[in-house]
Amino acid sequence: MAPRGRFSAEFADAVESVIQQRRDIRGNHFTSKPIPDAVYQRILNAGLHAPSVGFSQPWRFVTIKEQATKEQISDSFEQKNREGEACFTDEKQSLYRRLKLEGIKESPINLAVFYAPNDGPVLGQTAMPDMGRFSVVCAIENMWLMARALNVGIGWVSILDPKVVKAAVKAPDTWELVGYLCLGYTDDFPEIPELKALGWDKQRELSEVLFDEVCPSNG
Amino acid sequence: MAPRGRFSAEFADAVESVIQQRRDIRGNHFTSKPIPDAVYQRILNAGLHAPSVGFSQPWRFVTIKEQATKEQISDSFEQKNREGEACFTDEKQSLYRRLKLEGIKESPINLAVFYAPNDGPVLGQTAMPDMGRFSVVCAIENMWLMARALNVGIGWVSILDPKVVKAAVKAPDTWELVGYLCLGYTDDFPEIPELKALGWDKQRELSEVLFDEVCPSNG
Repeated sequence: MAPRGRFSAEFADAVESVIQQRRDIRGNHFTSKPIPDAVYQRILNAGLHAPSVGFSQPWRFVTIKEQATKEQISDSFEQKNREGEACFTDEKQSLYRRLKLEGIKESPINLAVFYAPNDGPVLGQTAMPDMGRFSVVCAIENMWLMARALNVGIGWVSILDPKVVKAAVKAPDTWELVGYLCLGYTDDFPEIPELKALGWDKQRELSEVLFDEVCPSNG
Repeated sequence: MAPRGRFSAEFADAVESVIQQRRDIRGNHFTSKPIPDAVYQRILNAGLHAPSVGFSQPWRFVTIKEQATKEQISDSFEQKNREGEACFTDEKQSLYRRLKLEGIKESPINLAVFYAPNDGPVLGQTAMPDMGRFSVVCAIENMWLMARALNVGIGWVSILDPKVVKAAVKAPDTWELVGYLCLGYTDDFPEIPELKALGWDKQRELSEVLFDEVCPSNG
């Protein structure tokens, strides 16, 4: 018997193209064109069908469109970005200063993605307690790829204080912020990731990160 | 000017189908059919093109095919699985006991996925230190979806002792195990996730996990 749901080669080619052409979109590329509800729902649904440890589905999503909330988050970004910049020196610091690293106010939709821990034990999480957080990250990557396939850009902003985001949306104490996403249409999906194009770091080849059976002694 | 790399509706449909039909495959469904090198390379390449914080690409992959290594990991699973089972009571415990939760020895390829922390500061990780680990999870989800599109099953085993996996593959001290994956062809991609079909937990609707601007007071 043939396996259920066997995909033809076109599916693999499509998924591969979307993976290769996904980009982190920032405020210098978002347009103000609104995202239709049906498109946003498809993106969110991709998150809802991510793998989750023990089928715990520990993700919670908060849609943010209000300007006042965006301003609070943006202020937190500005502060944390100054602190981040100060971690670097010389050329890296001056390049850091020139980068546009978020699109909080330029994107029509912000989406705060939280991990809501389960009250009791979770199957599959008893030996690796981070698995719940990791499930939420899988939901984010699913949404990122679904958005890209729908020609919607996403930028993941990690330069902010999670406590500020939690307070801004009145998140329960037990929730943890996993990702803060900016969603919108874009005037461009850059051909090359910006940090690669600017020489911030080199693209690693598979041969540099893949090992056979045992790791090299120098890591 | 039209944005670069604009995808047609077929791409979104393909990505959506693959997301919806991705499953966690365990040892009762893997077949022994080997995965051709070219197929494995496409899966790994999907991981290599995941988003990573500050373009840090902190993922490291160790391919495991040797039976002796699989036996060590499998022993760790058995021990952690007994401990996990003991966290549950009554019907949940008896259902837990009947579940087949891994395919370490039945799958032709095991893949240990590590996070290798950067020596210095990482752009985007200065305010949220988990971002490096989260980048590695994005690589895992990319590989999982690419594998599914290529009709290769993946199961993520989180019921094991990361220290045992690190020792088995001689991973550097600084590396952290993020995921342990089993890859192989499968006789079936179940229509419904097993834990949902067995009633372990209910599928959450979008309305239960999506909030507008602020969270409900009860979480």
